[in-house]
Amino acid sequence: MDGIFITLEGCEGVGKTTQVKLLQNYIEEHNIEAVFTREPGGTPVAEEIRKIILETGRDVVPLVEAYLFATARADHMQNLILPALRSGKMVICDRFIDSSLAYQGGARGLGFDVIYQINKAAIGGRMPDCTVFLDMNPIQSWRKQKGKVVSDDRLEGEADEFHTKVYQSFCKIRDSYTERYVSIIPQTEKLNTHSLIVNALKKRGYFN
Amino acid sequence: MDGIFITLEGCEGVGKTTQVKLLQNYIEEHNIEAVFTREPGGTPVAEEIRKIILETGRDVVPLVEAYLFATARADHMQNLILPALRSGKMVICDRFIDSSLAYQGGARGLGFDVIYQINKAAIGGRMPDCTVFLDMNPIQSWRKQKGKVVSDDRLEGEADEFHTKVYQSFCKIRDSYTERYVSIIPQTEKLNTHSLIVNALKKRGYFN
Repeated sequence: MDGIFITLEGCEGVGKTTQVKLLQNYIEEHNIEAVFTREPGGTPVAEEIRKIILETGRDVVPLVEAYLFATARADHMQNLILPALRSGKMVICDRFIDSSLAYQGGARGLGFDVIYQINKAAIGGRMPDCTVFLDMNPIQSWRKQKGKVVSDDRLEGEADEFHTKVYQSFCKIRDSYTERYVSIIPQTEKLNTHSLIVNALKKRGYFN
Repeated sequence: MDGIFITLEGCEGVGKTTQVKLLQNYIEEHNIEAVFTREPGGTPVAEEIRKIILETGRDVVPLVEAYLFATARADHMQNLILPALRSGKMVICDRFIDSSLAYQGGARGLGFDVIYQINKAAIGGRMPDCTVFLDMNPIQSWRKQKGKVVSDDRLEGEADEFHTKVYQSFCKIRDSYTERYVSIIPQTEKLNTHSLIVNALKKRGYFN
């Protein structure tokens, strides 16, 4: 039987990377067999495309950005995610198609339908079984993190308005996929957020 | 009014590059305003993707290959072809969507429908007005070119069977788009082939 496919989604700067690491530690400590991976990237071709995407200052139009992510996703899916799922392993992926829907579809204005159409063959019809969404407007989170070093990474250099649009788009996606979505409101203490995530996944029967 | 969009298609080794050059010379000599370009490539992002596609020995599955070409095409279309057409210029492009249909759709077995779906947003609904097809099975052509240096380029290193499938796929596409297609059978003398192409384009009213 196919393994469970879990994705983590949310805006930048709301603690997603930290939560991915905490979840990874939990899974290792509890001897749960799972493959951790991230988008864009995860396979050699996808990593090369990641470089094109993240290169500072590259003037990429939203449609091309959407195609770059879909191409990396197709490679990641064919060469890592689908084989792992088919061998019965759990796959936990940091960002997936919902990030394309929220960033290029919602915030960049291409629309959810176009993004889904571009990605349909890339995901081979395999949507995640569960998506853990860190439900926070990043602007709110950034204001808390005074003194945080600002990254020069292109994707983190966008304006407040853009990130609010991304957040609102994620909320729309969550509201369209209520069965698949688990919304977690990030807590001041990262370990409390981690517990909420683990408990939600236990409740779904993915962990003992 | 939009400019005329002409594409050149055909299998490798049937003299397409030579005919593109001869056509380019003709157009320059006759002061016809036209933009010549090629796929994959034509813009900086597309050229970077071209490198990934052509890198010898890279093990890319057909679906990812199709996405790489579609991504390069989206960039090429948005940043070069559509702006030129909108400014009323003629665009002549060496390979376009029909190459994806023939190579990945037909010969690699993904099917024409999947390839069209992947490419739909990339071409922005703008199919070529005219496609000049060099109608020859490349195996037949290669046998004529004794002593030709074999390229180590990945795309030219494929087996005879594959190229015959590509040719058969082009023939199917031609038969589905009879209005758009101009089939030219390559002649022993390259200048004779060139004359056939120029006359066909004149007949369509693209040149005086």
